[in-house]
Amino acid sequence: MTVKIGLIGLGMIGRDHLQRFSSVIKNAKVTAVCDINKNTADAVAAEYNATAFYDAEEMINSELVDAVFICSIGPVHKAQILTAFNAGKPVFCEKPLTPTAIEAKEIIEAEVRTGKRLLQLGFMRRFDPGYNALKATIDSGKLGEILLMHCAHRNASVPESYTLEMAVNDSATHEIDIIRYLLDENIVSVRVDKPAKKTRRALPHLQDPLIVIFETESGVRIDDELFVNCNYGYDIGCEVIGEDGITALTEQALTTTRTQHGNSRHITTTCMERFATAYDREVQNFVDQVSAGAEMTGPSSWDGYVVALVCDAGLASLKDGEKHAVNIPECPALYRQ
Amino acid sequence: MTVKIGLIGLGMIGRDHLQRFSSVIKNAKVTAVCDINKNTADAVAAEYNATAFYDAEEMINSELVDAVFICSIGPVHKAQILTAFNAGKPVFCEKPLTPTAIEAKEIIEAEVRTGKRLLQLGFMRRFDPGYNALKATIDSGKLGEILLMHCAHRNASVPESYTLEMAVNDSATHEIDIIRYLLDENIVSVRVDKPAKKTRRALPHLQDPLIVIFETESGVRIDDELFVNCNYGYDIGCEVIGEDGITALTEQALTTTRTQHGNSRHITTTCMERFATAYDREVQNFVDQVSAGAEMTGPSSWDGYVVALVCDAGLASLKDGEKHAVNIPECPALYRQ
Amino acid sequence: MTVKIGLIGLGMIGRDHLQRFSSVIKNAKVTAVCDINKNTADAVAAEYNATAFYDAEEMINSELVDAVFICSIGPVHKAQILTAFNAGKPVFCEKPLTPTAIEAKEIIEAEVRTGKRLLQLGFMRRFDPGYNALKATIDSGKLGEILLMHCAHRNASVPESYTLEMAVNDSATHEIDIIRYLLDENIVSVRVDKPAKKTRRALPHLQDPLIVIFETESGVRIDDELFVNCNYGYDIGCEVIGEDGITALTEQALTTTRTQHGNSRHITTTCMERFATAYDREVQNFVDQVSAGAEMTGPSSWDGYVVALVCDAGLASLKDGEKHAVNIPECPALYRQ
Amino acid sequence: MTVKIGLIGLGMIGRDHLQRFSSVIKNAKVTAVCDINKNTADAVAAEYNATAFYDAEEMINSELVDAVFICSIGPVHKAQILTAFNAGKPVFCEKPLTPTAIEAKEIIEAEVRTGKRLLQLGFMRRFDPGYNALKATIDSGKLGEILLMHCAHRNASVPESYTLEMAVNDSATHEIDIIRYLLDENIVSVRVDKPAKKTRRALPHLQDPLIVIFETESGVRIDDELFVNCNYGYDIGCEVIGEDGITALTEQALTTTRTQHGNSRHITTTCMERFATAYDREVQNFVDQVSAGAEMTGPSSWDGYVVALVCDAGLASLKDGEKHAVNIPECPALYRQ
Repeated sequence: MTVKIGLIGLGMIGRDHLQRFSSVIKNAKVTAVCDINKNTADAVAAEYNATAFYDAEEMINSELVDAVFICSIGPVHKAQILTAFNAGKPVFCEKPLTPTAIEAKEIIEAEVRTGKRLLQLGFMRRFDPGYNALKATIDSGKLGEILLMHCAHRNASVPESYTLEMAVNDSATHEIDIIRYLLDENIVSVRVDKPAKKTRRALPHLQDPLIVIFETESGVRIDDELFVNCNYGYDIGCEVIGEDGITALTEQALTTTRTQHGNSRHITTTCMERFATAYDREVQNFVDQVSAGAEMTGPSSWDGYVVALVCDAGLASLKDGEKHAVNIPECPALYRQ
Repeated sequence: MTVKIGLIGLGMIGRDHLQRFSSVIKNAKVTAVCDINKNTADAVAAEYNATAFYDAEEMINSELVDAVFICSIGPVHKAQILTAFNAGKPVFCEKPLTPTAIEAKEIIEAEVRTGKRLLQLGFMRRFDPGYNALKATIDSGKLGEILLMHCAHRNASVPESYTLEMAVNDSATHEIDIIRYLLDENIVSVRVDKPAKKTRRALPHLQDPLIVIFETESGVRIDDELFVNCNYGYDIGCEVIGEDGITALTEQALTTTRTQHGNSRHITTTCMERFATAYDREVQNFVDQVSAGAEMTGPSSWDGYVVALVCDAGLASLKDGEKHAVNIPECPALYRQ
Repeated sequence: MTVKIGLIGLGMIGRDHLQRFSSVIKNAKVTAVCDINKNTADAVAAEYNATAFYDAEEMINSELVDAVFICSIGPVHKAQILTAFNAGKPVFCEKPLTPTAIEAKEIIEAEVRTGKRLLQLGFMRRFDPGYNALKATIDSGKLGEILLMHCAHRNASVPESYTLEMAVNDSATHEIDIIRYLLDENIVSVRVDKPAKKTRRALPHLQDPLIVIFETESGVRIDDELFVNCNYGYDIGCEVIGEDGITALTEQALTTTRTQHGNSRHITTTCMERFATAYDREVQNFVDQVSAGAEMTGPSSWDGYVVALVCDAGLASLKDGEKHAVNIPECPALYRQ
Repeated sequence: MTVKIGLIGLGMIGRDHLQRFSSVIKNAKVTAVCDINKNTADAVAAEYNATAFYDAEEMINSELVDAVFICSIGPVHKAQILTAFNAGKPVFCEKPLTPTAIEAKEIIEAEVRTGKRLLQLGFMRRFDPGYNALKATIDSGKLGEILLMHCAHRNASVPESYTLEMAVNDSATHEIDIIRYLLDENIVSVRVDKPAKKTRRALPHLQDPLIVIFETESGVRIDDELFVNCNYGYDIGCEVIGEDGITALTEQALTTTRTQHGNSRHITTTCMERFATAYDREVQNFVDQVSAGAEMTGPSSWDGYVVALVCDAGLASLKDGEKHAVNIPECPALYRQ
């Protein structure tokens, strides 16, 4: 069965997914696109041979659409998701689930009422072969109990629109999610360390780099270097320290080149380049579940909600520098495997 | 448009491709399967919801089939390909194109008569991101003129059915193709060096390892270590030496793990593991071309013919240890870009 | 000129240095050895053809001795150093300079009174080619301003005699010294983070691993993972993050070996193995200065004093988990280059 | 005991060793230097506080000299070595032992007559920690029987004085010696392959790169890429392929640096940089043996003779491109351990 996709939000990530549906994703077709900018919606609809909508609710409820793909801005996510839940249609939602944990909670409640996992959240790293290999090593038990993790999240640069808070609720969200994925447990506290020195490359409104320190239920301590103007590339590090050994992501460069400048390996320049495979696999996973009529797998609304709770603690710490506890309610049965 | 695929030959590689069509490949569906073993054909057809055929010609000419996927044994390739050409249907053919260069020449002539490139040959390495990166570096000019290449082709082990000649016309074919791909020129001579010492792990009828030495038109010298019972894994090496610098494939391991046994990176164990992405991409490329009604791209019948000519020289050298010239006729216009 | 060395303290490190003088160090000879254990002193003296002493003061003042090499336990360092200063003899002192900063201050005052740098402290990492290369890259300016450092200090295991405090004043001292060496500035605060989870391999009296966080005058933030029962080897990491780029120690393995367990690089098992070259070079540096009649270079009493001040702050933080400031007096002219 | 060294030949390598004796080597002093250029001899003698000689024989026989260090040009080696043998003085001789195998044979005969190994030859790679680690892995048996080796010997560039023949009897000599060291067996044949393409960076009288192929007694096949104008650095590769696994030299870079040009590791630029430790260790080994009054260890006259025989076969092959056998006489008892 070919899944008819209705895609909302035709910005950069929306168009990237459109291209992905067009060239890579199996068993799906974008039949409808929606944007509040009519010209954009019309032009993209024409280009991809889809029907243009300007109102998300209308598109979601249209018979042209089997499943909803949300690439709109965060503040409108909740309404669009609830509309899809009402229509009983599966939803893929780009992160963040919602800008606040309170809104995320409403989504949880609504999804629980449907009795079925209807939503997959866009935490693509869970589909990255590198992180999958880390998890396989952890789960094999050969490292013993995990004690520490060291993470690094580096962007060459960020646009002027990137705010101080986004270091937590945009960049660090990826590590927050992946920590929970790798360790199968929740984060219970967050502390943001603001080094006194910041890079001259960061705009005045930013504090860059930052170090965020997480603790999990079992006591694993994780530090996460967030450095969004590192200049040299898009570079993601993850080292997991266990009682018996250590595993870490490699550089994953395909080739090495020797010239008078030394023996050099390519560093990826963008998130899209580094996680190209992960993006493809997360979207195919969504389509496969829809196509099979199955419940959603992969990152859930619950994951989005919990990440939002952790972010809230992180934002509080960003203000006062103190360690903030994260209080996570009991996980509804729907989200327990 | 969804391309209706008829797949011939339900052995290991045939079933691997069936699985790929089922789970990964976009815009295609295997509508027909064919095997001379009726039980196999029936069972697989039932499993994949396809129609079973026991006669390849019948299947190729069936209206159920838009494009033909040949995974049968080499000796029957020629007849199946010519039937597809007569029907004007695009063909993906697993390597080798044909067991002999003479048969390959008939295919060339038939394809030229159709006036259109109808065939893509299964040299998947051209779709491997690692080899693509090597080629990009070579083509960038930063290495200057290429002078030498060192290749290694190592399998953990081979089954008893693997013959001495297969080192050349099964294993080395991949390097023969990839040399031509990377350097954009033909091979003009081949010499097989049989080291006096062979591994105790090789069966008595084999000579393992072997070293094959190629020369290209411009004078690039390539050595290729073929070691098909190397014990430790499936390991493919390629180092390209230029006047100004060198580029080489890395290990491409995703993670590294530190234990009391040292700091260790995983080595792939099979061709399917090492070239998983390449297999997916070569098949998708075929489907995309068919779907677009375009001529075939990627490795062509001509590539298969030339590789067969190089193999013939290699087999002669395997017998007498001498350097044998490869005489390649002028390339028909159809195959020149 | 051959320097006549009098070596005090014939424990493990003392004997290691004796062996080094005997086999590697140029222009020096151990003419006298001293240990409070008479049998030990006599036996070692006989083995190395030196004169045995049982009293350090007597040996230091003996005409048999040009320079003093202190490998005794920390509590007796001060008296031995002051005796050597009184005799005007150069001293090499194994770390720590003294167990407390107060004692170290007395040494500073005494050395300043002599008007000459007479002491080299045993911080061997400053002589490690790897750290030297990091420093060269930092000093080249190609990384821009340094912002962060990530250090790791891992031992396979520690003996029962290793106390909780030694994580700071034995293990972390090496990073404290090397941070000052690499960055050419002082540390102004220390905070010890005690992760909730400790390895089952650590004895009950230990907290292992620990994370120590340092800040320097200019605001560089450094985290140092101290993990002294890491099980897998002796492994030292150092990554320096600048505005324009990053430099880090590699594994420094000489060979890589591919077997069925993967592609593996050796990890050193002891400090002596990892820093073999550094130990040789620090001792030769001492001898060369003495032999030339020059003032001491390399790590000084002042470095030892400052490290002790940082350790005091670290020990306070180890108790209360708070960030503690380090107050460093003005550096006497003697120790400014 | 301090060994009194008389050093002959004050060219580049001679001065390099003088510096080494002055700064690194223990238990030795260069008391005499000799050069046919009187001004050079006088100036260097003054600088290093040694006695100047202009006649090698006179210096060798002088009471100022315990041991002879030959850094003169090859054609005068034989006479100097024989003089030292007559005087019963130990000799360190820079490679080559002699320009021809015939002369080397005379040295063997003379040394055998003395009844004692008096000479250490300057094949420094045997003292390189990397090659030592390769040998340890081979000797451990974990690779099984060795089947193949791939070597690469690359210089950034060579001076105009470098002749075609020197690719064999200057560059390849290092691999010839190290093959015998690693495998504990002799080479029985040599073939030089001249690729049709040469680098534009090589002067017209050279053939660069070259591939030399060796076979050992047990049948191990080794290929050696000689590329003496590789442009990018001084780069030595060695990969040893066994029945059960593979070991290879790593890059041995101490640090890795990430900038916008990628993640880069330094490549050494000269032989002196790459083998600095090996040079120090070979000279110290010589001094230690002399100082102990022991017979010489390390590379012997016999090793030099056998390498010369292999070179003769290589030079013959350089002319005709054919495989040439190496006929090695029975090894005198003196040189068998």
